[in-house]
Amino acid sequence: MSTSTIEAPQRARATGYGRKPSTHDATMTEVGPGTPLGEFMRRYWHPVAEAAKIQHVPQKLRILGEDLVIFRDRKGRPGLLHARCAHRGTTLYYGKVEENGIRCCYHGWLFDVEGRCLDQPCEPDGGRHRDQARQPWYPVEERYGLVFAYLGPPQKKPVLPRYDILENVGPEQMLWTHVGGFFATGDSSLSVVPYSWLQMNDNVMDPFHVQVLHSTFSGVQFHQKFALMPKVEFFAVDHGVCYSAVRQLEDGREVDRISSWLMPNIMSVPDIQFASGASSNVAWVVPVDDTSYVTAAVMKLPKGSDSPGIRVNGKRWGEMTEAERQRFPGDFEAQSGQGTISLHSEEHLVTSDRGIMMQRRILEKQIEVVAAGGDPLGVNFDPAKEVHAVRSGNFFRAARATG
Amino acid sequence: MSTSTIEAPQRARATGYGRKPSTHDATMTEVGPGTPLGEFMRRYWHPVAEAAKIQHVPQKLRILGEDLVIFRDRKGRPGLLHARCAHRGTTLYYGKVEENGIRCCYHGWLFDVEGRCLDQPCEPDGGRHRDQARQPWYPVEERYGLVFAYLGPPQKKPVLPRYDILENVGPEQMLWTHVGGFFATGDSSLSVVPYSWLQMNDNVMDPFHVQVLHSTFSGVQFHQKFALMPKVEFFAVDHGVCYSAVRQLEDGREVDRISSWLMPNIMSVPDIQFASGASSNVAWVVPVDDTSYVTAAVMKLPKGSDSPGIRVNGKRWGEMTEAERQRFPGDFEAQSGQGTISLHSEEHLVTSDRGIMMQRRILEKQIEVVAAGGDPLGVNFDPAKEVHAVRSGNFFRAARATG
Amino acid sequence: MSTSTIEAPQRARATGYGRKPSTHDATMTEVGPGTPLGEFMRRYWHPVAEAAKIQHVPQKLRILGEDLVIFRDRKGRPGLLHARCAHRGTTLYYGKVEENGIRCCYHGWLFDVEGRCLDQPCEPDGGRHRDQARQPWYPVEERYGLVFAYLGPPQKKPVLPRYDILENVGPEQMLWTHVGGFFATGDSSLSVVPYSWLQMNDNVMDPFHVQVLHSTFSGVQFHQKFALMPKVEFFAVDHGVCYSAVRQLEDGREVDRISSWLMPNIMSVPDIQFASGASSNVAWVVPVDDTSYVTAAVMKLPKGSDSPGIRVNGKRWGEMTEAERQRFPGDFEAQSGQGTISLHSEEHLVTSDRGIMMQRRILEKQIEVVAAGGDPLGVNFDPAKEVHAVRSGNFFRAARATG
Repeated sequence: MSTSTIEAPQRARATGYGRKPSTHDATMTEVGPGTPLGEFMRRYWHPVAEAAKIQHVPQKLRILGEDLVIFRDRKGRPGLLHARCAHRGTTLYYGKVEENGIRCCYHGWLFDVEGRCLDQPCEPDGGRHRDQARQPWYPVEERYGLVFAYLGPPQKKPVLPRYDILENVGPEQMLWTHVGGFFATGDSSLSVVPYSWLQMNDNVMDPFHVQVLHSTFSGVQFHQKFALMPKVEFFAVDHGVCYSAVRQLEDGREVDRISSWLMPNIMSVPDIQFASGASSNVAWVVPVDDTSYVTAAVMKLPKGSDSPGIRVNGKRWGEMTEAERQRFPGDFEAQSGQGTISLHSEEHLVTSDRGIMMQRRILEKQIEVVAAGGDPLGVNFDPAKEVHAVRSGNFFRAARATG
Repeated sequence: MSTSTIEAPQRARATGYGRKPSTHDATMTEVGPGTPLGEFMRRYWHPVAEAAKIQHVPQKLRILGEDLVIFRDRKGRPGLLHARCAHRGTTLYYGKVEENGIRCCYHGWLFDVEGRCLDQPCEPDGGRHRDQARQPWYPVEERYGLVFAYLGPPQKKPVLPRYDILENVGPEQMLWTHVGGFFATGDSSLSVVPYSWLQMNDNVMDPFHVQVLHSTFSGVQFHQKFALMPKVEFFAVDHGVCYSAVRQLEDGREVDRISSWLMPNIMSVPDIQFASGASSNVAWVVPVDDTSYVTAAVMKLPKGSDSPGIRVNGKRWGEMTEAERQRFPGDFEAQSGQGTISLHSEEHLVTSDRGIMMQRRILEKQIEVVAAGGDPLGVNFDPAKEVHAVRSGNFFRAARATG
Repeated sequence: MSTSTIEAPQRARATGYGRKPSTHDATMTEVGPGTPLGEFMRRYWHPVAEAAKIQHVPQKLRILGEDLVIFRDRKGRPGLLHARCAHRGTTLYYGKVEENGIRCCYHGWLFDVEGRCLDQPCEPDGGRHRDQARQPWYPVEERYGLVFAYLGPPQKKPVLPRYDILENVGPEQMLWTHVGGFFATGDSSLSVVPYSWLQMNDNVMDPFHVQVLHSTFSGVQFHQKFALMPKVEFFAVDHGVCYSAVRQLEDGREVDRISSWLMPNIMSVPDIQFASGASSNVAWVVPVDDTSYVTAAVMKLPKGSDSPGIRVNGKRWGEMTEAERQRFPGDFEAQSGQGTISLHSEEHLVTSDRGIMMQRRILEKQIEVVAAGGDPLGVNFDPAKEVHAVRSGNFFRAARATG
């Protein structure tokens, strides 16, 4: 063995060699039953499907790492059950919906939307002990055209919240809903988005990527006003974080764009064409499992509106080639480019990431609250307080002197 | 941290929340070398291929978690060898069959059907020490148009059994054979079935799913008589379990359908068109590995018969769309719907599952026998006792008074 | 429980039953950061791309288990950076190349080819602390039409070697380069070869497979002269192994084919059409990760030559069917047939494998040298010694008497 006598070059020229192994932050990304984040998330209602699409043919639904089926019985009640039949475990996806529930294909056990076993046709008297075989189920409620589910401890079920900006739908208005990949791709190409929910959640309180990714790097994806670098302030609200991004316009006015993130996974983004006034939408980033999610969105629109959607150079995301996506990346590329689960140990957060730091700090704190047996911010058990105020919007005004 | 003062609703309304992690039963499903089930299964002969399809082109064959190749040398002897050449490990799938064996493509080593190395052409004198490099091999025998293999300890090799109902093939009869997914799908779409062998094995002593899955849930898949709920009795036989399923017919007769399961993975199902008399077939559920299997079947048929097969609404399984399979599920859907390996900790077995409980109890007991060094039920070392009697059939008779 | 009284047949008839679990040799195959082989490999320069193909569109590049991007800035300098942006981790594959480096799509951070952060446009003053966020990078150099990278400790960076047979390219000559699967398939079908680098490396000092695989088993893949079984000697050279394979020709001459393997993963194979004289090519087997690699090749050819390539029965590898590949296997089949990573515990090495044993012994020894902090054979820190002599070639001469 020989050892070189070459002198080491300056250490300052450190390369990629010799780095520590990198890791993701499990506390913020792993959502299965019993995990800290999973238990925290299970304290909230989550939208899981568009109500109009839940009919009598059962559909597979994966949420928070659990495999479920969703259907609507012939009385019109939506049902959300574990996919495996409580008897011998075949999936109720092959079940048949009846007046009072869903019947398993294999031996005909019939369950209602709350998992009660109503019939065991191969057993004497239709199953004398059928009460002992309750199918695991979760409560659901319909609102705003979405089906919401609660997967947490029954005694901790909160009131399903309302949002002021989604109430009072006028006679010339409608609620547009979408569950899938809309907030990642701007179209309906994806039914599930194949990376961690946190990467989309981080994106919400990040007004700066709008200036770069959506406005100057890939051309104008939203509106040319976004190309102006804003002056940004982040501030805490009741149970979330907002930012105010102020841009000075050429006509002497300024526009204050206020965007909101609410616990645990809710955003309300103002109109991306810079229409003046309050935001008309609320969206949730619902973890499917550790490495995928859906966005569920509701938007108040004039009746007869086309479905919202983003085109880049005239093309929807689903129509773009890989080369076009490389040249004109959008949210999906930026977020999926972070990996299936980002390696948080490698991040270098800076002042423009302050919104993300605030979000994560709140999440971490409230995950601890739940782990200690408490109730996290944003859950509410009082029906009188069910309406949440949302502050988001594009607010135009005369420019103020800034200090 | 705050704690809600809401009173917990009644505990009886338990949902899917807070369930214990679920598990499969490894003892009944894991088949690799050295596992309890694997060692037990290795004490029996298993059919692994249709004899007519084993010719001079080597074929890949996976069985009990081992990767093998099967071929027939030019003398006509079938050979079953580990796929990796004993020399440097390339697969003998790329080998070439000769008069006396198979030659590896890489360096030309030649092995006979019992793994003896006959030539090492790159070594002096064709390999002076070639005897030291025996290729791992397994004994095979041909019977009923199938190739049977024995993967167990050489000193424990039993007599290859015969079955009375497959003997004495008359001049107007033939034996139809199939290895693949036939008993799962009713057609030849699948060469391997992608879930645990136990899910098919459970299906054998389950007469009730015939009434539901095959007769009333998905329409008539076999014969309309199956829609009558039978009176069922299970009983132990020499080394297996039978059921008797009696149906009262409109014409005053009754039909007693007797179906058999024999150790360790053998079934004899009576004719599914309810033809009268003894069953004409025997089938094996052969584990490929922990998460897949093939069925190997022999059926005695009149010469010139079409290949058996099931159609639903005029379509074979391979021709059905996913939506049709969801609407008209059959054995493949019910069994694959249990998962790659079912979660046995979640099962709720009831009185109609008594046949499955009997099967599993026998299997568990005999797995223990093998683990303790004994010989399990159903293996036989006495050539005088090679013929097994099979009791299966559809037996019509005048209805008896039932007590 | 009963125990058979059958006598065990002779033990000599051992089958495949009861074998120990088989394993691969991790020390020779696992290449990630911190592994013994990975640290050893990181002491050498490796060619990673064809220089002409590295332009302003960033490309993904995986090498030694690390995910990188490679590009050329608008000043013409090639850059090799970790794929994850040092800021929030999105991939620089979606970045845009500028005069001085590459800009991330998400928040616009700009890095030069040595990872220095030149701009953080969303931070005050373009990032007052941007020096603290150096993007992990690796040194690259261009030579012979290839881009070479050094992934090891900066203070141990050796001189990039030259090879005498690639120097002095005459005015009527050119250097042909290829990075991909060329040495596995003989064509450009594969960009990455999906099995361990060691399987290709083992192939280099194995003159016997040329006689079998390439010449007598699958017909003539290279040249009919290879069908003559050679007399082979292996011998160590400065930092590698050579073989001399002598074949007696019908015309009374003999041809001595000398082929070279150089540390750690370099081969120089003589012309496979048996053209007389020194080899004109050098090739590297560069691990992509534990289970895949590329070959990077340079060949000196007459100007205007067609790209080299192998056809079997008139077809390139990429044009062959699976059945044709089974019947006429080549290097890809023989090597991929060993598995993703071969099971080295199952090998039976014999006298014709002596070259492989010599290679592996040197590798093992030098891996230990690096683990102990030393410099392995074949790295050189003295610019005066940068040219390596390569001995490979087809040398024709009058037959000598052999003892």
